[in-house]
Amino acid sequence: MTTDEKIEIHRGLKGVYFERSATTFIDGKAGELRYRGYSIHDLAEKSTFEETAYLLLYGELPNATELAAFTSEMKAARRIPDAVTGIIRAMAHAHPMDVLRTAVSALAAFDPQADDNSPEATQAKGVRLTAQVPVIIGTHAAIRAGKPVPEADDTLGHAANFLWLVTGRKPSADAAQLMDRDLILHAEHGSNASSFTGRVVIGTEANLHAAMTAAIAALSGPAHGGAAEDVMKMAQDIGTPEAAAQYVKAKRAAGEAVTGFGHRVYRTEDPRARHMRDGVEKLSREMGEPKWFAILQAVVEAMRPYARFGVNVNVDFYSGVIYYLNGIAPDLFVPIFAVGRVPGWTVQCLEQLQNNILIRPLTLYDGPAPREYVPVNHRG
Amino acid sequence: MTTDEKIEIHRGLKGVYFERSATTFIDGKAGELRYRGYSIHDLAEKSTFEETAYLLLYGELPNATELAAFTSEMKAARRIPDAVTGIIRAMAHAHPMDVLRTAVSALAAFDPQADDNSPEATQAKGVRLTAQVPVIIGTHAAIRAGKPVPEADDTLGHAANFLWLVTGRKPSADAAQLMDRDLILHAEHGSNASSFTGRVVIGTEANLHAAMTAAIAALSGPAHGGAAEDVMKMAQDIGTPEAAAQYVKAKRAAGEAVTGFGHRVYRTEDPRARHMRDGVEKLSREMGEPKWFAILQAVVEAMRPYARFGVNVNVDFYSGVIYYLNGIAPDLFVPIFAVGRVPGWTVQCLEQLQNNILIRPLTLYDGPAPREYVPVNHRG
Repeated sequence: MTTDEKIEIHRGLKGVYFERSATTFIDGKAGELRYRGYSIHDLAEKSTFEETAYLLLYGELPNATELAAFTSEMKAARRIPDAVTGIIRAMAHAHPMDVLRTAVSALAAFDPQADDNSPEATQAKGVRLTAQVPVIIGTHAAIRAGKPVPEADDTLGHAANFLWLVTGRKPSADAAQLMDRDLILHAEHGSNASSFTGRVVIGTEANLHAAMTAAIAALSGPAHGGAAEDVMKMAQDIGTPEAAAQYVKAKRAAGEAVTGFGHRVYRTEDPRARHMRDGVEKLSREMGEPKWFAILQAVVEAMRPYARFGVNVNVDFYSGVIYYLNGIAPDLFVPIFAVGRVPGWTVQCLEQLQNNILIRPLTLYDGPAPREYVPVNHRG
Repeated sequence: MTTDEKIEIHRGLKGVYFERSATTFIDGKAGELRYRGYSIHDLAEKSTFEETAYLLLYGELPNATELAAFTSEMKAARRIPDAVTGIIRAMAHAHPMDVLRTAVSALAAFDPQADDNSPEATQAKGVRLTAQVPVIIGTHAAIRAGKPVPEADDTLGHAANFLWLVTGRKPSADAAQLMDRDLILHAEHGSNASSFTGRVVIGTEANLHAAMTAAIAALSGPAHGGAAEDVMKMAQDIGTPEAAAQYVKAKRAAGEAVTGFGHRVYRTEDPRARHMRDGVEKLSREMGEPKWFAILQAVVEAMRPYARFGVNVNVDFYSGVIYYLNGIAPDLFVPIFAVGRVPGWTVQCLEQLQNNILIRPLTLYDGPAPREYVPVNHRG
């Protein structure tokens, strides 16, 4: 069986367009990112996560009345059934991404609209899941620490409530604002591996919980969601700003990548990075641990010669240190990415459903020629 | 923001090749299907599911010693941790696909090799999951029926043990052989939507449990795994062979598809269909319910004019009746597909890991032009 050598193989589907999308504009060469036409810089500096989530889900920024209703809807959904808490307890020792994936999968059994794939139901489920994902992560964090399961605090916004659930402490206004910004920056990013996974799953007409379970599965891979945790580890390994240059030199000499640099899409600095950089600088000073910012900047300095090859910091270069300074365990860094991304996954699924098709590319056969079946007793 | 009209959009990624694969050869025009060079007809008639699973996972048919060792390994893995049984119990009222997806996701927390993505560990996990998926389905079926959780029977082969677990009755030799054949026919099928989902997920370097959870999520969609259940419903709706022609005529007049016909890949009869047809004929006669086979054949007869447009029966046209005659509830038909497909998902993930790359195609932006952010109190 010969393979046709004229057939082009698009490994990783790099550069292949599979759909139109009205949600996120990315210009990787110019370093530009917009949600629904709004610059990520405006949204990071002037918006809130709730507002940005509304923008993504419904296409327009909410007015004051709409925002109040949306915020109430989110707050009302900040709970999970006892059965799901029981499931989290049953696997309390597991990695938080395994727990999050399993709990979101289980929520399908308790959502009254689980199998309704209409736009309205999909949006409503997206709102509920946005509110529930922090509850799952906080519930697991408390259970494995031997603490009582926390209750959501309705006086807090989404980001502050998440920090409360996951750390058991009410955050400062600055810390809450920085987490809010982090979630805005992670809320949507076009056809990344997890959103694409969600589209493939909902392309089979599966429900949103199935699609989001699969998206979380994709995000659990170190090549997609793992950078923030790796960068924090790197900063700890380096230890002092003075050691950064030598660390980078050794990495490059060994032909290894420096974590937190480079992105499949961007050839400039990731436009989201600057907002987290400013945040790390401020937070590490406030917390009396300025060395973390100094170490990161020393790494950036040492990496400068490679920037002309398009190797620049990405959004997760700075976020790990922010989470660390908030007292969050390193294995919760990827789940935080998920907290931010739920609206993005939802809107990608919404768009897919509006003009749905089974997503099914091809593999080119490159295996054994036809052969005769021989019964087991005649095999060597 | 204008979109570049010269950019080609490959909707559904139809016809796009993203990778080479040495596992399954499909010629949709000729109606040919081979696993690792062996004709599906030989495998369906002469092989067993255990042997075919080995072939898929390791590339060659096993000799007698290898097959005995493999069979023992599978039998030893026919159990799930009590915590996972508890999770199944916590969502006993849910659809079996929601339960299966959640339970497989949870198994990640209990598999000692969960995060080892080496080929050897991936194969070993694939074997365990192949053995565990029937246990999950059988456990759920028993719990929701108020029966005691069944124990696997080590005197039975894979297909017979599955029937035992799911129905609570030891199957006849004929029924077991037919289920075995069904599982062989479902074991692998190249880059279908669920296997592709698994590849996208493991492309992020996530683990096999994450990939398989996502594959099950994709299979839960009616456009992928739902046909067998729909065909059984159709056969019941039609009621008698004489009513088939009128049913088909009405469907076509309404511009609706007749379920169980047509396939994204095949332009001839699905090569897997004939084996199930022979099985239905025999089984419905043996069970004293020959009308089911007669109804299906009357539908095929009525659909004959459309065959020249490539609309032919697919593998799931006959399988639903087989499951029904075995006394299996309709909502377990898609899970049976999963029972067969675990080795296929595993080998697709194995291949992806051997030459891994992040799978991330693009969407073309087609949304609002850049716009200015206006504070909430100034919005209409």
